[in-house]
Amino acid sequence: MIKVAILGASGYTALELIKILLRHPHVEIAAATSRQTETPRLAELHPSLTGRIDLRCEPFDAERLISRGVQCVFGCLPHGASMATLPALLQRGIRIIDLSADYRLRDPNIYAQWYGESHADLKHLAQAVYGLPEIYGDTIAAAQLIANPGCYPQTGILGLAPLVAGHYIEPRRIIIDSKSGVSGAGRTPKLASHFPECNESVSAYQVGKHRHTPEIEQVLADVGGEPIDVIFTPHLIPMDRGIFSTIYAMPRRSMSERELLEMYRSYYARAPFVRVAEHLPATKDCAGTNFFDVTVRVVRDAIVVLACEDNLVRGASGVAVQNFNRMFGYEERTALL
Amino acid sequence: MIKVAILGASGYTALELIKILLRHPHVEIAAATSRQTETPRLAELHPSLTGRIDLRCEPFDAERLISRGVQCVFGCLPHGASMATLPALLQRGIRIIDLSADYRLRDPNIYAQWYGESHADLKHLAQAVYGLPEIYGDTIAAAQLIANPGCYPQTGILGLAPLVAGHYIEPRRIIIDSKSGVSGAGRTPKLASHFPECNESVSAYQVGKHRHTPEIEQVLADVGGEPIDVIFTPHLIPMDRGIFSTIYAMPRRSMSERELLEMYRSYYARAPFVRVAEHLPATKDCAGTNFFDVTVRVVRDAIVVLACEDNLVRGASGVAVQNFNRMFGYEERTALL
Amino acid sequence: MIKVAILGASGYTALELIKILLRHPHVEIAAATSRQTETPRLAELHPSLTGRIDLRCEPFDAERLISRGVQCVFGCLPHGASMATLPALLQRGIRIIDLSADYRLRDPNIYAQWYGESHADLKHLAQAVYGLPEIYGDTIAAAQLIANPGCYPQTGILGLAPLVAGHYIEPRRIIIDSKSGVSGAGRTPKLASHFPECNESVSAYQVGKHRHTPEIEQVLADVGGEPIDVIFTPHLIPMDRGIFSTIYAMPRRSMSERELLEMYRSYYARAPFVRVAEHLPATKDCAGTNFFDVTVRVVRDAIVVLACEDNLVRGASGVAVQNFNRMFGYEERTALL
Amino acid sequence: MIKVAILGASGYTALELIKILLRHPHVEIAAATSRQTETPRLAELHPSLTGRIDLRCEPFDAERLISRGVQCVFGCLPHGASMATLPALLQRGIRIIDLSADYRLRDPNIYAQWYGESHADLKHLAQAVYGLPEIYGDTIAAAQLIANPGCYPQTGILGLAPLVAGHYIEPRRIIIDSKSGVSGAGRTPKLASHFPECNESVSAYQVGKHRHTPEIEQVLADVGGEPIDVIFTPHLIPMDRGIFSTIYAMPRRSMSERELLEMYRSYYARAPFVRVAEHLPATKDCAGTNFFDVTVRVVRDAIVVLACEDNLVRGASGVAVQNFNRMFGYEERTALL
Repeated sequence: MIKVAILGASGYTALELIKILLRHPHVEIAAATSRQTETPRLAELHPSLTGRIDLRCEPFDAERLISRGVQCVFGCLPHGASMATLPALLQRGIRIIDLSADYRLRDPNIYAQWYGESHADLKHLAQAVYGLPEIYGDTIAAAQLIANPGCYPQTGILGLAPLVAGHYIEPRRIIIDSKSGVSGAGRTPKLASHFPECNESVSAYQVGKHRHTPEIEQVLADVGGEPIDVIFTPHLIPMDRGIFSTIYAMPRRSMSERELLEMYRSYYARAPFVRVAEHLPATKDCAGTNFFDVTVRVVRDAIVVLACEDNLVRGASGVAVQNFNRMFGYEERTALL
Repeated sequence: MIKVAILGASGYTALELIKILLRHPHVEIAAATSRQTETPRLAELHPSLTGRIDLRCEPFDAERLISRGVQCVFGCLPHGASMATLPALLQRGIRIIDLSADYRLRDPNIYAQWYGESHADLKHLAQAVYGLPEIYGDTIAAAQLIANPGCYPQTGILGLAPLVAGHYIEPRRIIIDSKSGVSGAGRTPKLASHFPECNESVSAYQVGKHRHTPEIEQVLADVGGEPIDVIFTPHLIPMDRGIFSTIYAMPRRSMSERELLEMYRSYYARAPFVRVAEHLPATKDCAGTNFFDVTVRVVRDAIVVLACEDNLVRGASGVAVQNFNRMFGYEERTALL
Repeated sequence: MIKVAILGASGYTALELIKILLRHPHVEIAAATSRQTETPRLAELHPSLTGRIDLRCEPFDAERLISRGVQCVFGCLPHGASMATLPALLQRGIRIIDLSADYRLRDPNIYAQWYGESHADLKHLAQAVYGLPEIYGDTIAAAQLIANPGCYPQTGILGLAPLVAGHYIEPRRIIIDSKSGVSGAGRTPKLASHFPECNESVSAYQVGKHRHTPEIEQVLADVGGEPIDVIFTPHLIPMDRGIFSTIYAMPRRSMSERELLEMYRSYYARAPFVRVAEHLPATKDCAGTNFFDVTVRVVRDAIVVLACEDNLVRGASGVAVQNFNRMFGYEERTALL
Repeated sequence: MIKVAILGASGYTALELIKILLRHPHVEIAAATSRQTETPRLAELHPSLTGRIDLRCEPFDAERLISRGVQCVFGCLPHGASMATLPALLQRGIRIIDLSADYRLRDPNIYAQWYGESHADLKHLAQAVYGLPEIYGDTIAAAQLIANPGCYPQTGILGLAPLVAGHYIEPRRIIIDSKSGVSGAGRTPKLASHFPECNESVSAYQVGKHRHTPEIEQVLADVGGEPIDVIFTPHLIPMDRGIFSTIYAMPRRSMSERELLEMYRSYYARAPFVRVAEHLPATKDCAGTNFFDVTVRVVRDAIVVLACEDNLVRGASGVAVQNFNRMFGYEERTALL
């Protein structure tokens, strides 16, 4: 039984994480923190947890967590807050899965450029492992600090990895047109996610400026061994959850759909949560699961990849537990099916 | 051509009002005010107005409005702010249609009890006319100050008026179970109207405590000439707009559905915006219109009234223009079909 | 390990049932039938099952199911088809959980009156146990044939049972105003559940005529030992899943909210899936779970019960597995948390 | 006063057309046809028309329409049915605005290839004018037969026309990633538009195979005077109405966003329904209107056009009335604001 703590328990990824961990036979949720001054019960923050867990949020205190035997911490804090909070735990040997963006970008200059502030924890940044098991599976088991991947990046990376790894496509001007449910915007009320504003509407946002862009490019450059350029356009869709990415790339040589699908199947042969399908996927079919669904089409001379996932499970808390399972030696799918 | 001003232009009722008034052949929107410190263009507040109207919001200034020839003011301010703002205009003879709740409840003690503050403008409260044309049609034309009715109350009042007027039902324990789209909660972001909270969900709120309760009872008591008690339960529905009220009342004598429908048709024979139908209505069929749709059923020995309307048009801005038309001598339906 | 079969695998309740059973440590889904002439794989009928189960639908054949060792059958057929199909299995000793309405109404005359056809299997009707564990818990364990309860009835019955059992309310004119997501209408396309018709709309249907009415009355009469009359109004809400019922009853003596809540808590003290809460419930908080959430309010002199559930899990497939667990001696919550 | 008839009155485009025409001061809807065997009132087909129009559908009969003085016919029939029905009217000199796809593709071979059947009315096909006023404005006034443009094509064509006209972009591999509300799929119930299937989900369909592809290419080739290739991917979004297209093109020479916006403004300077904006558009802001909203961004070295419209008004019935106004000499915006 591994005792875990959750930092920043009031948001959607924390809620999803708690629901998954309550099903995990080897996990005890020993503590949850919240930056609010009160110390609400988890079921007050999230009424759906009524009768499921009887735990009161507490202020963050590294010593107290350690003294209580916490071995692993899931960070659900916003970026900035993560790198200010986690070093105290890392220095004491606690293993951490951080769901924020703080430890994802290897180059602190790129972090500063996209996030608008200097990185405050270069020491641990250098040790962090990007927690995408299908790409960095070997290094996750031994990591102390996992930078859990972003929701959009996973669809771009997993959707393109087989093509990039085999150098089948031109590495520039790859287009990722993504459609996301509103829970991706977090739980803090704002006009853009006010029901009467975003219901019955589609729009694009942060066109060409979204912070997930360098994350996608960094990992795909790792996969392909050469620089990759993407044009990434996120859109807001009137639904709770799910991300659908339509990806356009130009092949270096002509390939049939059959060849492409076989190549994808082969690339993901040992990835239990990647489903390469012949049919066109829909976000509903992977909603609430840790599956990543993908298919490929050839249109005129372009390759069109159609990929989707649940943004809160596969895109955040599910893959976090997948990483946890690898780190602590449990079967990868534990609590995730 | 009547010059009008709109106070409090940033919300949904103001937007709806502007769209209707832009179609009105005898109205010029001469001014719009906003309590924000900047003076945004209307199309900045409401992008849907791009290319429709070129007007900049200004701070409220009674003198300036009057000097510009404004004859009629639509108040879209929150309650409290209305009764603090409107006296300056009323004293100068401006005619006002106030969409807030401030002038709806005749008895200032009831106002204080439900709204939690004393009424600040007893003088004009005493002169206000409740702006429901189907009930108070005769007095609207001559009114200086119209208290435009609430969205929920209209469904309860118009749904029950024929029964109450004819003394066909027991006046106590009338149940009004209402279902409203989220735009009824206004445009200020809050957790209850955050998309991922209210989408894919139904819940009741303010059970037995909603401020529209005394408004319904006051008007129905006028209609029936005796006190009326309602049990009013509002629910939030994951849609933009529309209110559907299911009303349960106990008849004093047995009546058939046919009798009831004929009685309703006769009661509303001269009301161009009330549609008494045999089919069960749906909010979609009156969405964006000034129609009030209603039918009646007999279930066991109870009368069940099924009534719906668009909460922003019929429930607020449409009926405001209907009142305007009566006040200024235009055909009642002008700009509303 | 119990081998089970699912009859009528193409609908939503079957899909939900399969997802729950895939998590059940003591169940093997040995067969699934479909009335379609082809024999599609389950993952073709339901793309969300891709990679989860590799089973092909087959035509119904009682002998074949028995020869394969099936011990328990879940019937997801429409009413009418159930009573035509299940006797062949019942005669051979197979235990059945029937999700249709065919074995719910004890009196075949009432069945004929509400369903428009004579009951075709009076023999087994007489033996059927209504599968609501919170009410008939003692008899479920030994039953051969479970009539799994309807989705709406559960909210009415569980919402009222504590009041009816203690004779706290008048047994006539109880009003159940229910709001349901669209999945309750099944998976067969029709205009009423066509997206552009029911999205952004609320309406009532089958007012006073819905077939779940006698089911509610039968069980509440059992609970209270006296006839019960309900006025039941179902409404269609633009969301996938969830039922919210607002119930109005008149108390025989005055009771406070505190008394009522304590009485509810005491009545459901041993029911692990009933959550009596002080806060107003929302369907989202029990979506996808087997929980039934309920609270009580007093408004003027009436009792208002606010109750909700997930219509596909608690309202159908979850309670079916809860019944299965009781029938086969597993802990009641197995596979349901 | 022009007498018009509507063929195929039961669908969504007919409903929208009727609502617009009811506001048109110079139009009388003299007849409506339906292929159903009964002759329902329009308000029975479309309850929202209750109290708005008292007209009964009739079977199609060219002579009867002509004898009643009909001068203009709006065809809302499906493709195939249009070219079988309209010649009888065209031969008698009736002017027609056909909302089907039958007369849009100039080359009957391309029609046969994409629609799977030979064209049955080559004579009138040769005379048809593609009814996109912003592109073919000069020829519309004198046309007898207007092929009203498709909903998707308008976003692609109007979104790209300024770039194509000025030869600013590479004419191959232009990507149009479109997101449409469900009303675009028509009013016939089918699984893909069944509420519980498409709600809370995004998916792509007909990838690389959608029939609107050749329509877009034909018109853009006219605009640019050279062949154009597009990769067009339509997606289904859980909302009633609206199309949002995100368009990716490669510039022949580097251009700034400012230059591009000015060029768009200049191109559409005399188009009252095209709104070139600096802000990112949202479908909600043009919902229910005849506006086409567009802006342009430069991302890395690509041009990204973001364009949206209401698929039923601008995408079908609104532009049909815009064409009508030009054909019969009324101000272009009549009944459309």
